[in-house]
Amino acid sequence: MKITALAGGIGGGRFLRGLLRAVPDAEVTVIGNTADDIKLHGLHVSPDLDTVMYTLGGGVHEDQGWGRAEETFSVAEELAAYGAHPQWFTLGDRDIATHLVRTQMLAAGYPLSAVTEALCDRWLRHLPGRGVRLLPMTDDRVETHVVITEDGQSRAVHFQEWWVRIHAKVPADRIVLTGIESATAAPGVLEAIAAADVILLPPSNPVVSIGPILAVAGVRDAVASSGAPVVGLSPIIGTAPVRGMADAVLTTAGVDVTPVGVAGMFSDLLDGWLVHESDAASVAPVEALGIRCRAVPLLMHDVDATAAMAREALDLAEGVRGGQRNET
Amino acid sequence: MKITALAGGIGGGRFLRGLLRAVPDAEVTVIGNTADDIKLHGLHVSPDLDTVMYTLGGGVHEDQGWGRAEETFSVAEELAAYGAHPQWFTLGDRDIATHLVRTQMLAAGYPLSAVTEALCDRWLRHLPGRGVRLLPMTDDRVETHVVITEDGQSRAVHFQEWWVRIHAKVPADRIVLTGIESATAAPGVLEAIAAADVILLPPSNPVVSIGPILAVAGVRDAVASSGAPVVGLSPIIGTAPVRGMADAVLTTAGVDVTPVGVAGMFSDLLDGWLVHESDAASVAPVEALGIRCRAVPLLMHDVDATAAMAREALDLAEGVRGGQRNET
Repeated sequence: MKITALAGGIGGGRFLRGLLRAVPDAEVTVIGNTADDIKLHGLHVSPDLDTVMYTLGGGVHEDQGWGRAEETFSVAEELAAYGAHPQWFTLGDRDIATHLVRTQMLAAGYPLSAVTEALCDRWLRHLPGRGVRLLPMTDDRVETHVVITEDGQSRAVHFQEWWVRIHAKVPADRIVLTGIESATAAPGVLEAIAAADVILLPPSNPVVSIGPILAVAGVRDAVASSGAPVVGLSPIIGTAPVRGMADAVLTTAGVDVTPVGVAGMFSDLLDGWLVHESDAASVAPVEALGIRCRAVPLLMHDVDATAAMAREALDLAEGVRGGQRNET
Repeated sequence: MKITALAGGIGGGRFLRGLLRAVPDAEVTVIGNTADDIKLHGLHVSPDLDTVMYTLGGGVHEDQGWGRAEETFSVAEELAAYGAHPQWFTLGDRDIATHLVRTQMLAAGYPLSAVTEALCDRWLRHLPGRGVRLLPMTDDRVETHVVITEDGQSRAVHFQEWWVRIHAKVPADRIVLTGIESATAAPGVLEAIAAADVILLPPSNPVVSIGPILAVAGVRDAVASSGAPVVGLSPIIGTAPVRGMADAVLTTAGVDVTPVGVAGMFSDLLDGWLVHESDAASVAPVEALGIRCRAVPLLMHDVDATAAMAREALDLAEGVRGGQRNET
């Protein structure tokens, strides 16, 4: 079975780990968000790609959900001693090695997709089963900027600054995907969507993780025109994100912070949608959007619980296969 | 008193620390060798500048003589796990922060001299006394390459590779200063030589540290035409370098590995030369070159011993002031 998933960072990585546990023999391709990539201290940092890579490869800081296990911070201490900016984003030493390899390869002319493949050769090559292929959504530079108003002045900050420094406490007036107009899908992305038996949307941030991937030229169309069932998992339980601050960006995007609201963002794509068991009341409104819906446990407490979620998603995909999508 | 010194790494840094102890009120300008600079993992590394900076600033690994105290190696471990090359040069985490700042500033268009000033703002600004100004010999790229013969094949390797990986065990057929023809002195270098009351050559490697500095256009002439006394300290005691592998490059340069041989390399410049107390027999041959010579303790056991060496050098400079140089 070929599974293609569109993934952000923490939620994406954790879900994918459960997916691999559930179907170790599947051929999984992950299309990762790169719109929160950022240059820090001259290093090209790809937070979402790295979170997926570290999580699947066993190198992630488990409690934190991102960054490296057994991390040290000597470089960051020294950068602070030099007064180097920005100081609101702390890079760990082990993590920096990843960025050094990436930055050097990019400087040598390799596209991000080739760099990601090289980095994943360390982390994902030895996984059991068929393994995972991690593709950046694009090799072009796309950056999510958040327009905020401070002291009556409107200004745009990089998403990471809004998220990490401002903690999303200043409302986002607008979210702008800088560079998205000219970005083309990275090699293999459209092909992986076209070839998929199932397309999954893990419980990632719908606005700043899944949104940018779908905004890359051709990606949304490829998903919409794929013959494969498309199934997503709600990142919202009740009226709040399971983790992170997705509510802040959903509000900016004019989307209800509910499982139904998020499903509505992708109603042109979704065949199935999983909501949390406590959101059973959402099933009917989601199905009214023409999307098959089930209420199941959606808390990724551990890999087993997450594998069960992945099985539910695949089961729902199986249920819609030959169903509504083939009718359209 | 204005003192200008031409310095390599370990020997230079240690001598300068003694000099500052000896004459804390002197205005010291150090012209540092940059010909062993190297790009590693995309980072611009300036080993000699950093060794001087860390040594004078109190951040050096004392026993080792270079690199940072309390260093950690998480980045290097990870780079090795990625299989990143070269693996024969290990960068410490704290040290990497310096290279990140340098590399980013260079990429932003600042010349190495401005970068060095910015880095030294952390390390040298708070020194007691008049402090020290550290200038790179040039803002242009100069690299010392060593031509070696392996398996009958002649090839050039970066000096660092020959020194660190090969441990100078394969003889150097030739030493080439790549880029030296077009290199110009960094801002302040010629001025610091012209303005000096005393010019010192610390016990640095005469071929690959002092040699490249003097080879930058205008530097050797500026030293030769300076009215200030020029005094050096022999890096060779008996027939061996006090530290390092200077003998290997002296042989390649066709210079006797003796205090007299090294003095002869700079006989057009030197007014005074200090040899170690055990080399009293060298005094007469050095003086036969027209260079005032004294045999004194030259082992830099500690800062006090080194300060005594610096006093001897300044005393010798005072002795020749108004002496032979003014006669010429």
